[in-house]
Amino acid sequence: AQLALERDYEAQRELDTRYRVLMEMTRDPVMLVSMSSGRITDLNPAAAVLLGGARPELIGTAVAQEFDGRRRGEFLEALANIATVDAATPVEVTARRSQRRVLVTPKLFRAAGERILLCLIDPAERASLASDELG
Amino acid sequence: AQLALERDYEAQRELDTRYRVLMEMTRDPVMLVSMSSGRITDLNPAAAVLLGGARPELIGTAVAQEFDGRRRGEFLEALANIATVDAATPVEVTARRSQRRVLVTPKLFRAAGERILLCLIDPAERASLASDELG
Repeated sequence: AQLALERDYEAQRELDTRYRVLMEMTRDPVMLVSMSSGRITDLNPAAAVLLGGARPELIGTAVAQEFDGRRRGEFLEALANIATVDAATPVEVTARRSQRRVLVTPKLFRAAGERILLCLIDPAERASLASDELG
Repeated sequence: AQLALERDYEAQRELDTRYRVLMEMTRDPVMLVSMSSGRITDLNPAAAVLLGGARPELIGTAVAQEFDGRRRGEFLEALANIATVDAATPVEVTARRSQRRVLVTPKLFRAAGERILLCLIDPAERASLASDELG
């Protein structure tokens, strides 16, 4: 039983390391939000730059506080609604600290009984450029 | 003890889900390679597109087989050497299936006693465009 526990611990540490390295390395700005608390539980360096704050500062803050352009109570609900649709339309908002227009594309997932939103954040300018190219 | 085990299991499942959703959603092409086996242990849809194969096909194949332009035995070692440097220079190679020139930027990490390379893959064209803009 001791060995099994150690194996579990190792497996967990491996997943944890993989997750952390992946978050660090991806250049796509990514943010995780807990649906129950409405708070940012994690974000990568790329997302922190877009939002205009340091990572330790941003982790734990209420996500609705970090964006303007939506009534606070509505923001989380709006994201959750979009997240359930397959081809999600991003929400366009202003990041409060950096004052940059951004597009937030959420995806809802369940883990250990908790509902978590994984949000991709894009600068609004770059995205409209891409749609110009397409259209 | 039963409860503790269940908690561990839940925590592990949560990390696993988080990792999987993150891999699915990131548009940066990412590939994981085991240093001990030299095989691709995981890659995201974006990386599969660049390499020109289906994900289930690519997972488990020897990474050196998927790229031309380097002697097979050397490739993994070259990546591992680069990965230990802080400001890693990417390796330029050709993806065998898609015949696209790509830049592979590896980062070495240790998890549960195993050495794993997390590789970002970029199309060589886009990268040279970016350096033109900078320079």
